[in-house]
Amino acid sequence: MGAVSPARGARTLSGNQPQQERSRATRLKLLEAAVSCLAERGWSGSTVSVVAERAGVSRGAAQHHFRTREDLFTAAVEHVAEKRQNALKAVAHNLPPVGSPARTRIIVEELVGLYTGPLFRAALHLWVAASDEEQLRERVTALEARVGREAHRTAVALLEADESVPGVRETVQGLLDMARGLGLANLLTDDSGRRERVVEQWAGNIHATLRLG
Amino acid sequence: MGAVSPARGARTLSGNQPQQERSRATRLKLLEAAVSCLAERGWSGSTVSVVAERAGVSRGAAQHHFRTREDLFTAAVEHVAEKRQNALKAVAHNLPPVGSPARTRIIVEELVGLYTGPLFRAALHLWVAASDEEQLRERVTALEARVGREAHRTAVALLEADESVPGVRETVQGLLDMARGLGLANLLTDDSGRRERVVEQWAGNIHATLRLG
Repeated sequence: MGAVSPARGARTLSGNQPQQERSRATRLKLLEAAVSCLAERGWSGSTVSVVAERAGVSRGAAQHHFRTREDLFTAAVEHVAEKRQNALKAVAHNLPPVGSPARTRIIVEELVGLYTGPLFRAALHLWVAASDEEQLRERVTALEARVGREAHRTAVALLEADESVPGVRETVQGLLDMARGLGLANLLTDDSGRRERVVEQWAGNIHATLRLG
Repeated sequence: MGAVSPARGARTLSGNQPQQERSRATRLKLLEAAVSCLAERGWSGSTVSVVAERAGVSRGAAQHHFRTREDLFTAAVEHVAEKRQNALKAVAHNLPPVGSPARTRIIVEELVGLYTGPLFRAALHLWVAASDEEQLRERVTALEARVGREAHRTAVALLEADESVPGVRETVQGLLDMARGLGLANLLTDDSGRRERVVEQWAGNIHATLRLG
C-alpha cells in the first residue's frame, strides 16, 4: 500500500493523464449542468438524461460518473456551493480596511449573494424534494449541514467576528438566516431593489452589534 | 341589480341560512385540509381529490367550491395565513409593558412562529411549484405579496416601530427575511434549539437597533 512502481507512476503521469483530465472535465460539465437544470426545471424536470444532454455528454458516460439521480444532484449542489464559497473567501484579499463600515457592507452583500443566484434556487428545489422523498432526505440533510457550517465559518472569518463573545455566534447565524430568507423572497420575482436596501440597513446593524468599528 | 325583494331577503335570512352555514363549513374544512396536505405531501401529491377525501367531502362538493387545483391551494394558503396573522394580532393584548426587552422577545418569537409551522411548509411547496409552473406563478406571486405586506404591517404594529425614521422599515423587513430563513432551516430537521438562541439574540439586536427601550 502506498508503494507505486516507477513504471506505473510514470504511466499515470503520462499515458493516463489526458484520460483522467478528460474524465475530470466531463464530471465538472455534468455538475454545472445539473445545478442549472435543477434551478430552471426543478426536481421533477431534472433527470440524469436531461443533464447529460445539456452537458453534451452521453447518458452512459453520465452514469459512469454518477450511479443515481440522487448522486448526481447532491454532488452538483455541493460542488457549486464549494466553488461559490471559495470565490467568497477570495474576496477577503480585496476589501476596504478592517473596522470600516464599507468592509462590513461588502461582506454582508457577498454573503447574501450566496443565496440569491441559481445555486440557491437549485438547492431549494433539492431541499423541498427531500422533504417529501425518503431516499433524498438523509443525504440532503447531511449536505445542508455541511454547506451551512462552511458558510458560517466563512462569514465568521470575513467579519473577523469573535465567537468567544456571547451572542456573536447567534448574530452571525441570524445574518445567514436573513440571507436565506432574502434568497426565498427572490424566487418568484426580482427582489433586488428591496434586497439592496435591507442589506444596506442590516450591514449597519450588524456592524454596530458586533462592534466592528 | 342590488334590489332584493323582501320575500327573497327573508328566505336568505331564514330558510337558506343553515345551507349557507353548511357550505361555509365545508369550504373551511377543504381549506384546512388543503394546507395540511400540501405541507405533508408537497405539490405533486396534492390534488383536489386527495384534499376532498381528507376533508370528508365529496369530490363534486369540492369542485363546486374550487373550480381548479390552483384555486383551492392558493385560497387555502391565503386563508390559513390570514387566520395565523389574526391570532398574532390578538397576542398584542397580552404582552409585557411597552419598551421592555421581554415584549420585543415575545414579538420576535411570534413573528418567527409565522414561518416555522405547517403553513410555511405548505406555502414553500406552493412557491417552489410556482417557480416552474406558469399557470401558478402569477397567482402565487400576487398571494405572496399580499401575505408579505400583511406580515410587515403586523410586525410594525406589534413592535410599535416608527417607519418615518430612516432605516426602521428595512430593519423590520430584514427581521421578517430572517424569520423566513429560519423557516427554511426547519424544513428537513428540527431546528428549534438553534432557532431559540438566534431569536433571543436577534430580539436583543432589534430592541437596541429600534431603540425600543
